[in-house]
Amino acid sequence: MKKIYVNELTKHIGEEITFSGFVDAIRDKKWVMFVILRDSTGKIQMTIEKSEEANAKLLEIMSNVTVESTINVTCKVLENEAVKLGGIELIPSNIEVTSLAETLPFDFNNLEGVNIDTRMDYRWIDLRNPRNTLIRQVESCMIEAMRDYLYQNNFTEIHTPKLIGAASESGSDVFEVKYFDRSAYLAQSPQFYKQMALAGGLDKVFEVAPCFRAENSNTNRHATEFTSFDLEFAHISSYEDVMDLEEDLLIAGLTKVKEKYGEAILENFGKEVIIPTKPFPRMKLKELYQEFHDLYGFDIPTEDIGDMNAEAEKLTYRYAQEKFDSEFMFIVDYAATKRPFYHMRDENGKLQGYDLIWRGTEITSGAQREHRYEELCKNAAEKGLGKDVEFYLQFFKYGCPPHGGFAIGVDRLTMLLLGLTSLKETQLLFRGPNRLNP
Amino acid sequence: MKKIYVNELTKHIGEEITFSGFVDAIRDKKWVMFVILRDSTGKIQMTIEKSEEANAKLLEIMSNVTVESTINVTCKVLENEAVKLGGIELIPSNIEVTSLAETLPFDFNNLEGVNIDTRMDYRWIDLRNPRNTLIRQVESCMIEAMRDYLYQNNFTEIHTPKLIGAASESGSDVFEVKYFDRSAYLAQSPQFYKQMALAGGLDKVFEVAPCFRAENSNTNRHATEFTSFDLEFAHISSYEDVMDLEEDLLIAGLTKVKEKYGEAILENFGKEVIIPTKPFPRMKLKELYQEFHDLYGFDIPTEDIGDMNAEAEKLTYRYAQEKFDSEFMFIVDYAATKRPFYHMRDENGKLQGYDLIWRGTEITSGAQREHRYEELCKNAAEKGLGKDVEFYLQFFKYGCPPHGGFAIGVDRLTMLLLGLTSLKETQLLFRGPNRLNP
Repeated sequence: MKKIYVNELTKHIGEEITFSGFVDAIRDKKWVMFVILRDSTGKIQMTIEKSEEANAKLLEIMSNVTVESTINVTCKVLENEAVKLGGIELIPSNIEVTSLAETLPFDFNNLEGVNIDTRMDYRWIDLRNPRNTLIRQVESCMIEAMRDYLYQNNFTEIHTPKLIGAASESGSDVFEVKYFDRSAYLAQSPQFYKQMALAGGLDKVFEVAPCFRAENSNTNRHATEFTSFDLEFAHISSYEDVMDLEEDLLIAGLTKVKEKYGEAILENFGKEVIIPTKPFPRMKLKELYQEFHDLYGFDIPTEDIGDMNAEAEKLTYRYAQEKFDSEFMFIVDYAATKRPFYHMRDENGKLQGYDLIWRGTEITSGAQREHRYEELCKNAAEKGLGKDVEFYLQFFKYGCPPHGGFAIGVDRLTMLLLGLTSLKETQLLFRGPNRLNP
Repeated sequence: MKKIYVNELTKHIGEEITFSGFVDAIRDKKWVMFVILRDSTGKIQMTIEKSEEANAKLLEIMSNVTVESTINVTCKVLENEAVKLGGIELIPSNIEVTSLAETLPFDFNNLEGVNIDTRMDYRWIDLRNPRNTLIRQVESCMIEAMRDYLYQNNFTEIHTPKLIGAASESGSDVFEVKYFDRSAYLAQSPQFYKQMALAGGLDKVFEVAPCFRAENSNTNRHATEFTSFDLEFAHISSYEDVMDLEEDLLIAGLTKVKEKYGEAILENFGKEVIIPTKPFPRMKLKELYQEFHDLYGFDIPTEDIGDMNAEAEKLTYRYAQEKFDSEFMFIVDYAATKRPFYHMRDENGKLQGYDLIWRGTEITSGAQREHRYEELCKNAAEKGLGKDVEFYLQFFKYGCPPHGGFAIGVDRLTMLLLGLTSLKETQLLFRGPNRLNP
């Protein structure tokens, strides 16, 4: 039996069907009982007239049913203009209670004032809030569309290991795993393995998978585990090829999200989904510093020169909107010292990478990667990286085409898209130093 | 600049283009040098006539280029019937060497006799074997098509945490992680969280993600990390709904794979991709035992009664082919004692689950899940599960619709599809007790 969803009921008017869902509300009036039923696509009214003798059994069943229980209803689907919920009502002939709900710890329809930790403790109840359901649906849709874009462009999906033998990019912030009689570590990113796949001749690869960071910071913006949308492709001529692809990828994602959920997002989150046009504005870091100085009286602190900081990211958003009418902005010419050793530099030491800022937050660091073995060894040594990256350096000894790529944090993307302020409500199940449950 | 691939060259005949790829082979003849170039879509010949004076520089460049180096070639694309590789050749006017390959540790075109451990040590070289490239492409295609099927059926993709607070389903075989001042564990499956999402009202969810098992067994068929295709959906009326969906899902996947790679799979692996028809044969375990006894003189060992073993799975394949002309077979009526506590049983204790056998191997255990809190508590207690599943039991206290689902191991699926015998060559990077590198 295929479940009929609320948003499919118009196709079944006049029919006898079985409908199943949560009991969203019970309105017990003098002459009639209204039961509002809910599934992931919406709500529908079930009407039980008390005057009809045949309904006595149904009323008795319902008298024991609590809100948020689940039921299966054998019913007729009728049109009724007087019904506010879509002009349709269900007239039941049989009701089966499939689960009985205890009293809920909080009212998920009214989350204001409910502590975020309580909400996380009972995440499966918190998720029933339509806004939270929508977060999940929007994220799924965005990732679907981005993946589709890559499939259409002949990318191959890969699954790289999360258990790794060396602490990788940097020894700190890495989780250690007891691995039989030795230690393993949890991958902070699939970076090295994406590149390995290209050295293996796969040309264009992507992965959507968890990454792990052992950062002991308890903020709304840091999670110890998050989902990363990672891609890498070969035979590029510069990092501008990477930026071009990222533009197309985000446009593909946002177009589908707007089409499917644009209205719902505006209604529930007050955010308009704006589809950017190509090319996104691109600026050099130094020129941006100058504009910030001239327009906003902002000077980057000495320790951050060659890089951005949180305030500069916010100003970038303001500037991109004012000057280019754009929510996005690419920034190039970061200092090589501020970037990982595997980002390529040209013969003058200029970094061949970029950051992408969206709505005041960096969503990507992308780059052409250093594929030349000698250069890469030199850059690694310069950063003081030794044994831990030795296995990685081998990937480039036997021929490797020029390539580049980037990663987008899925959770952060969703957060910015919907104007959320905390990963705690963005992730399905947030993970931080103090949060491993449920 | 967008890379032009080998399989796109016919669209560029007569044009001057830049082609980039690996140097697959160099054939230095008296009057001419043939260089075979390769990318992920195929091979193409570059021809350098030695008699032409303008080619002196190109020949000098090529004299220093080793096989498996990568080059960018500015060239004309010409038709030439005499050229075996697709009747096209590249006539270069400029060559840029982008990476120089050292001598390879083995010939990846001839892997017979190369130790599997050596191949894994140099996986990025091993992957260049066209067969190994194809494995990755086929797997990616299969998963793409299966995901597409779910998106079309309104499933929501979720990302469940891999870091968990309790050792979960069973204490053994779980990896322990040093998590700041306490311990975390790596998820063996997203089972509990898929179900949590349904209790949260999401109705239909799926995830493709890594799972971890701390099994200390060094076989070709056991990995400590593998990719699982997991799904779960609500409002089902029995586990037959789950079987129905799995049929459609596999048909969708195999149809796309056959269409795109059917010929290549037959050529490279000698395996025909057979698209099954619905419904797949379904049999009760006891009836199957009887058939095995009658037809093949096989009796299941006492300790395995109520379950299958490796030989029974192989016989199931033989039987399914002989009796039903099918590669697939569903088996139902397993003993509840042989299955996890969260599989539903009916009022007579009969298990509401199934296994799916494909080509002699179990690829899925699916089931309707127990969604009734009291029953679930009872089943958990019966299996001796206490504190570790307490958090999970809470998901069912506040209303949860009837639901079911299953998981398919992506690596195992790929292995069976292509007739491979070892996960070591199926996974992009195999992980076992003795294997964490590269």
